[in-house]
Amino acid sequence: KKFQVSLPLISIFKEKKNNQEVKKLIHSIKVGIALVLVSLLYLLNPLYKQVGDNAMWAIMTVVVIFEFYAGATLRKGFNRGIGTVLGGGLGCLAAAFAQQVGGIGNAIVVGFSVFIFGAAATYSRLVPRIKRSYDYAAMIFILTFNLVVVSGLRAENVLALARERLSTIVMGFAVCIFISLLVFPTWASDELHDSIASRIEDLARSIEGCSAEYFNSVGEKRNCSSANSNSYKSLLHSKAKDESLVNFAKWEPWHRKFGFSYPWEKYLKIGDVLRDLAATILSLQGCLQSPIMSSETLLQSIKEPYTVIGSSLAWTLRELGESIKKMKKCQSENLMVQKLKSMTLELSQVKTLSTIGQMENADGLAIAS
Amino acid sequence: KKFQVSLPLISIFKEKKNNQEVKKLIHSIKVGIALVLVSLLYLLNPLYKQVGDNAMWAIMTVVVIFEFYAGATLRKGFNRGIGTVLGGGLGCLAAAFAQQVGGIGNAIVVGFSVFIFGAAATYSRLVPRIKRSYDYAAMIFILTFNLVVVSGLRAENVLALARERLSTIVMGFAVCIFISLLVFPTWASDELHDSIASRIEDLARSIEGCSAEYFNSVGEKRNCSSANSNSYKSLLHSKAKDESLVNFAKWEPWHRKFGFSYPWEKYLKIGDVLRDLAATILSLQGCLQSPIMSSETLLQSIKEPYTVIGSSLAWTLRELGESIKKMKKCQSENLMVQKLKSMTLELSQVKTLSTIGQMENADGLAIAS
Repeated sequence: KKFQVSLPLISIFKEKKNNQEVKKLIHSIKVGIALVLVSLLYLLNPLYKQVGDNAMWAIMTVVVIFEFYAGATLRKGFNRGIGTVLGGGLGCLAAAFAQQVGGIGNAIVVGFSVFIFGAAATYSRLVPRIKRSYDYAAMIFILTFNLVVVSGLRAENVLALARERLSTIVMGFAVCIFISLLVFPTWASDELHDSIASRIEDLARSIEGCSAEYFNSVGEKRNCSSANSNSYKSLLHSKAKDESLVNFAKWEPWHRKFGFSYPWEKYLKIGDVLRDLAATILSLQGCLQSPIMSSETLLQSIKEPYTVIGSSLAWTLRELGESIKKMKKCQSENLMVQKLKSMTLELSQVKTLSTIGQMENADGLAIAS
Repeated sequence: KKFQVSLPLISIFKEKKNNQEVKKLIHSIKVGIALVLVSLLYLLNPLYKQVGDNAMWAIMTVVVIFEFYAGATLRKGFNRGIGTVLGGGLGCLAAAFAQQVGGIGNAIVVGFSVFIFGAAATYSRLVPRIKRSYDYAAMIFILTFNLVVVSGLRAENVLALARERLSTIVMGFAVCIFISLLVFPTWASDELHDSIASRIEDLARSIEGCSAEYFNSVGEKRNCSSANSNSYKSLLHSKAKDESLVNFAKWEPWHRKFGFSYPWEKYLKIGDVLRDLAATILSLQGCLQSPIMSSETLLQSIKEPYTVIGSSLAWTLRELGESIKKMKKCQSENLMVQKLKSMTLELSQVKTLSTIGQMENADGLAIAS
């Protein structure tokens, strides 16, 4: 029977995986095309006469900026933009000041400013808030500032140099944005939305599966399949992934489905609640595996209420998952709260301690949604 | 009383934080010094005559490679080395081949190779195993390959160009490694070691604190202080940080304390077990907050065994934490196993279901260490 159950699960998993593979392939091809496009700056004579060796910076920009998700590309491009403009501007100022000083003082001013700005920007990269959002901008700031300020010692015209480099960087950026956003875009917002919805569905399925397996199996070795526990653990450690997806999703306002002020933070909250729920289910499984519960009479007495509660919890989760997936207000809200209340009552009669924690989490979920 | 307890805790926390701040400051100053050193390639005339504008690549290398932990710097430098050498080598070959073809075919071969190698390397960056260890190498490969192969169209002597750039990159790398490893190095291995040891200590303290607070408080609102739950959550989500620290620690074989074949993977395992334990304690707290347990007689009957078990669990954890911290074999191993066994017995008499899960985890911990 287990084999039958797991077959459709595997095929769903395979389909998901194939979907991911196709996305990865498309992304690779897009990067290849973008690289060829910026290489045209070298390959075509009229273009090369315009930009010269600065074409290098366009290639560098494409290689460094082009990320898997459209939002990530935008975010990195924006960071690179800020860093380049700030670093270039301050670098020009510092170089001009150093030239005013002149002589040996010139080199000293340059060296001193390199140290001060380099150390300050590096320190700012270690501040958590800046690290989260502007780490890359700070790095590019250090790089651009340094290159501009030391080039000021050698190049005749720093401003012209900076302008030329900036224009090729803008070309690279334009190619990236064009291809990333308009040709088969991969949206982080879609990914986040789908993963939250399917996670709720997974939890519902595992609550049902756990209770069914536990009560239907005979003999001493009552057990919730521990094969599940791996998927729980990946769910428990999904926080970092969620956070980065939210960071990218915020940069995707052009995406038809979600619009400009979509509440991405709520996805983080729902994710937190789901992780709590998964942790509770996991420790519930631990309790069920302990030998104390094995007295048959006790088991039979709690079998019915527990199964009912399990299935109605799963139903509640499914409703919530559906409503998130379809982006509609949950229709059966009142019914849900009623069911949850009656479950709490029933549970306090059964007095199985460990199930309570689970209940409270599900309650929290209903409130959070 | 709570105020008294929390004061030393806060001061420990502050000390830890100050320690981190000092490390951050030192790191920033080190980066500043490294930047000034590579800027000397521009600032000093004799050096500039040697390397020319390629000095740019030394600056770029320092900005990009210099990371907070010594191991991270080594790892990134190694990645950059592989990527540059592979990309440069293949780029030279492709450029030579394209020159053989000649004429309009030249540009076509270059464009085609840019697409193929760019797309293939981008795809490899999305494969989880490569992403984990060689993501940066693949990116540098794409960058170097592209720059070399398109420069082959314009520059007279690609090999000389590649050699000059490589030599400045090596200079930048040497400066980074020298400063990162020899001047007040920040070791990822130390950080990982200390954080695991202090996490065990934290858990021990919270087990004691929880049971004391629960049984000593009077009236209806029996509660484990929920202020703790935040520290649990940060513990629960420490997996990603642990993994990256292990990845860096492996690159720090020169670190006196740990040597060449230190078992870093075991730290990951211990971290997993600690996370399981924290999850169990968290759900135990959830169970304790439920109103069912509040009958005073029941509470009084389990108070003594529970307190004993809590304190001996905490003792076990402390012993383990000490032995990890001091890197010594745990002396009291036999006594520990005995205690744990007698606790299991006692618990099965008390028959408080929810504590069992906790026990099993602690048992696992004793085995894992």
